[in-house]
Amino acid sequence: MALLESITEPADLRRLAATQLPGLADEIRTFLIRTVCSTGGHLGPNLGLVELTIALHRVFGSPFDRLVFDTGHQSYVHKLLTGRRAGFETLRQEGGLSGYPSRAESVHDLVENSHASTALSYADGLAKAYALDGSDRRVVAVVGDGALTGGLSWEALNNLGASDRPVVVVLNDNGRSYEPTVGGLAGQLAALRRRAGYAEVLSLLDPDGSPDAPSLSELFGGLGFAYRGPVDGHDIGALEAEFVAARRSGRPVVVHCLTRKGLGYAPAEGDAADRLHSIGTVDPATGAPRTKERTWTHAFADELLSLGADRPDVVAVSAAMVRPTGLGAFADAYPERTFDVGIAEQHAVTSAAGLAMGGKHPVVAIYATFLNRAFDQVLMDVGLHGLPVTFVLDRAGITGPDGPSHHGMWDLAALGVVPGLRLAAPRDAGTLCAELREAVDVTDGPTVLRFPKAPLSADIPAVGRVGAVDLLRVPERSDVLLVPVGVLAGAALAAADQLATAGYGCTVADPRWVRPVPTELAQLAAGHRLVVTVEDGVREGGVGQAVASSLAEAGVEVPVRVLGLPRGYLPHAKRGDLLARYGLDAGGIAEATLAALGRTATAPAASA
Amino acid sequence: MALLESITEPADLRRLAATQLPGLADEIRTFLIRTVCSTGGHLGPNLGLVELTIALHRVFGSPFDRLVFDTGHQSYVHKLLTGRRAGFETLRQEGGLSGYPSRAESVHDLVENSHASTALSYADGLAKAYALDGSDRRVVAVVGDGALTGGLSWEALNNLGASDRPVVVVLNDNGRSYEPTVGGLAGQLAALRRRAGYAEVLSLLDPDGSPDAPSLSELFGGLGFAYRGPVDGHDIGALEAEFVAARRSGRPVVVHCLTRKGLGYAPAEGDAADRLHSIGTVDPATGAPRTKERTWTHAFADELLSLGADRPDVVAVSAAMVRPTGLGAFADAYPERTFDVGIAEQHAVTSAAGLAMGGKHPVVAIYATFLNRAFDQVLMDVGLHGLPVTFVLDRAGITGPDGPSHHGMWDLAALGVVPGLRLAAPRDAGTLCAELREAVDVTDGPTVLRFPKAPLSADIPAVGRVGAVDLLRVPERSDVLLVPVGVLAGAALAAADQLATAGYGCTVADPRWVRPVPTELAQLAAGHRLVVTVEDGVREGGVGQAVASSLAEAGVEVPVRVLGLPRGYLPHAKRGDLLARYGLDAGGIAEATLAALGRTATAPAASA
Repeated sequence: MALLESITEPADLRRLAATQLPGLADEIRTFLIRTVCSTGGHLGPNLGLVELTIALHRVFGSPFDRLVFDTGHQSYVHKLLTGRRAGFETLRQEGGLSGYPSRAESVHDLVENSHASTALSYADGLAKAYALDGSDRRVVAVVGDGALTGGLSWEALNNLGASDRPVVVVLNDNGRSYEPTVGGLAGQLAALRRRAGYAEVLSLLDPDGSPDAPSLSELFGGLGFAYRGPVDGHDIGALEAEFVAARRSGRPVVVHCLTRKGLGYAPAEGDAADRLHSIGTVDPATGAPRTKERTWTHAFADELLSLGADRPDVVAVSAAMVRPTGLGAFADAYPERTFDVGIAEQHAVTSAAGLAMGGKHPVVAIYATFLNRAFDQVLMDVGLHGLPVTFVLDRAGITGPDGPSHHGMWDLAALGVVPGLRLAAPRDAGTLCAELREAVDVTDGPTVLRFPKAPLSADIPAVGRVGAVDLLRVPERSDVLLVPVGVLAGAALAAADQLATAGYGCTVADPRWVRPVPTELAQLAAGHRLVVTVEDGVREGGVGQAVASSLAEAGVEVPVRVLGLPRGYLPHAKRGDLLARYGLDAGGIAEATLAALGRTATAPAASA
Repeated sequence: MALLESITEPADLRRLAATQLPGLADEIRTFLIRTVCSTGGHLGPNLGLVELTIALHRVFGSPFDRLVFDTGHQSYVHKLLTGRRAGFETLRQEGGLSGYPSRAESVHDLVENSHASTALSYADGLAKAYALDGSDRRVVAVVGDGALTGGLSWEALNNLGASDRPVVVVLNDNGRSYEPTVGGLAGQLAALRRRAGYAEVLSLLDPDGSPDAPSLSELFGGLGFAYRGPVDGHDIGALEAEFVAARRSGRPVVVHCLTRKGLGYAPAEGDAADRLHSIGTVDPATGAPRTKERTWTHAFADELLSLGADRPDVVAVSAAMVRPTGLGAFADAYPERTFDVGIAEQHAVTSAAGLAMGGKHPVVAIYATFLNRAFDQVLMDVGLHGLPVTFVLDRAGITGPDGPSHHGMWDLAALGVVPGLRLAAPRDAGTLCAELREAVDVTDGPTVLRFPKAPLSADIPAVGRVGAVDLLRVPERSDVLLVPVGVLAGAALAAADQLATAGYGCTVADPRWVRPVPTELAQLAAGHRLVVTVEDGVREGGVGQAVASSLAEAGVEVPVRVLGLPRGYLPHAKRGDLLARYGLDAGGIAEATLAALGRTATAPAASA
């Protein structure tokens, strides 16, 4: 690691001789494999970007020139070259390095949001600002071919190409987003790549281009860009030459770099599913996960597969994440009923609206944070038309090490405004299956299921039911009505045990469908001293406030204490630790309840 | 009108001889000009689509084949040809015909949402559904060149082109969205059109194509489409021939039709600004508006112009609506500081984030309903980075005749979850100017101003101030605290007068900045019998619920009655009528207040 250890800022890199660079690249790969296998993180993408990032930092002078990484998970090599080697073993751990660029970490970092397809738009804005200032700073956007299928990229290309501003688009073309092109990316770049005969093995590449190779050049040329490439993304000298030419041109340029995701790590190169795109802690020798627990995603995957047999009208829609969202088994069984639209959440939703108009019942499986990208499409294209589309939101609530742009904490609030939308939060595998069945039986509007990135909770049987509401605990005398949303039922029950010890009886009710709020909650609330709602989502506009409002409108004057996440961008840390920090574990719920009851933790006189 | 009167369904159209069709087109134009000048509506776009719509309905058999109109405002001719001539004079009036497709009106209508760029995605979904059914129904999407700059269109083209499904994309290329290409559309199609020498005057078109003409063919061909055209969009015979060929091909086809917005109506053809894109009631002889009132947009436009002189860092961003959103004067004075990104709301927001990172203060002027399309970009690209971007939302709240997809009633709720975002709702021109100045002085996060599509309200002076909150009325004895949001201050004051007559004293407080809720409201609320909030937005998750929550957290136990719009898709009608229907006029506010006070309209005993 002698070379890597000599680099504390990009200027150090520029002092190395060209002959030293392959050795540096080797050191970086070794370092990444060793470290990320122990911390977890985005391994495959960064192994593909080693040479490209070295070349970028030798040609462009960050932070004067600005480097913007689309989907910031491809910034690990950039972090190593900008002074963050020490401390890399804290990656994605609480208080440690972010898995994405972070302005708090470095002046070389800009964009912390890691939703795909944003980099070109940032670059357009930055370039406009520098042009107004008369500055000759260069703006470089590193964007994957997968992210080009996102509409925001198109909007940006459309604007960038028509300008005369010196933006360099580095197209990191590895033929993948999360998954390989087959069964994964549907899209124009993939088609162009196939037509051009670009094989994944770079040695097959004809540098003069196959007969169809001008396609990409024409596409970008038509948009106003100069096009350079394709260049071998693992040949630092070739990359530097292209970057130097692009830098000099002073106008919008696309440099098309062909890279291999996972290069240099056999388990990643051999992983056909996603080249070890994103891993937990794994055995570095094999790339195999250290633990394999059954998750909410698995339970959903199994039930959807079974549903597929019962309901021929059910189809599945994914935005480039068929397997991560649990659609893999359904896709294998029903390939013709599975539609992967690429990284294109808006199209996933509106094409689902079209499928529903055509008589199908689409199940759109998506990470909760990414549905925000199609808020208008849910509201207008699905909701306004009362179309039966079921959204299954994985990674809802606190996700953990991916941090602020990945916490799926906005859905309960944002989707709450959509007229006619029904949202369920299952508390265990059984309710997940039942609620999925209920969702696809709805014929007159959108339905949503949401569950976390977590091992499945233990089953929690209902001990009673009032209307649509499951009662999970009914004490002889009940002071408090606890209303947990979904997976927090377990914590609420444990809190109820603690509160019982303090002398308070707690009824625990799982509303199952939390949007709209069941009217039975008002009936249940009446006669209690306090209602406490608990949700793994932002408090502002969330389920708790809706419960409070519903009680007020029903004339039930029981105070409501709303527990949830603060309106803020929450840091990366373990899910359980963050839930505890924000008072959403058993202790936090009990404490907040006691405080609301009497602003003291002592037992009430009446309990004697 | 003999020919037009003979058409009650598309089959009638197919019985006409080709020689009769130009006469029918003339009748339709005459009818549209006469009717829309008196009802108001989208005149220019529909005058450009007369022949195209006739040809479509002769070749495709709706409703077996499905016609989807992007931005449904281009469906008037379709309405006339599908049995809705009678009743057309009720267009956009309460209880009358919708200005967009409406499934309640006709089996020939599908998509009611009129946000741009959705049609291709619906078409993809419909075609997928029909393919699964083994049906040979054709799906036709009529989309303007302006709407192709929207990312959703790109996502859809990307998916459609790669399929083998028989979708016909009718590209209605009039070289415009709302505005002409110069100073309006920045974009690839516009560039292609310029390069190809496509002049607006069709007679200049070389049907064999200029040397650059293959560009469009290559763009769509590269995406997998067959490309047909360009065809004269006013030559019914030529259009029919292309549509027949497209219908037969059984695969994805783009038919590129060149049309002239406003054709056949001199005032529209002569209107360089927007070809009378959307009009109120006008004098049919001149196209001049019947009334000219000063609106909120005018007040914003003037203040922004003045601000531009004081603050060289202020730049303006628009999504293809420079003039409708009041940016025209600023753009004329500071063209280099004005950025029109095309119909591309996501890019408007994220490029603004880039501008802010580059040291500028962008003012993004946009209709409230369209900001929903960039919810994730506001939350993640601007908010997460704490960037100073000011959003100015015109047409917030009830808009009126444009109906459910245009009511800007979601902003107060949806934006309420964005951490660090501050939102002001001015009550008159003075507060609009002051709050705009305050907004651009913020340096650490997004700010939002929202105002309605309405004549400016009369000035309402503050009679006092508590912290950031303006007091508009302070009675000697105050029973009720009325908290109106923005423009509803006038109605709240009038309601206070009525309540005074009934013996109740009402304090009226304008919080000015309603997100986050000022803490002073809790202080003001204490001691009152009731707080009533009044907002021109959906109640669920809105300002009122936030006020209630804020009072509860402050331990102020005054009941809060939240007045606002129901969670629903509200119909088209006059703004004032809809506000009254939902209880947001003076009478409605007074009545709801009395009901909350004592569930009776009689004066309280204490008032004696």
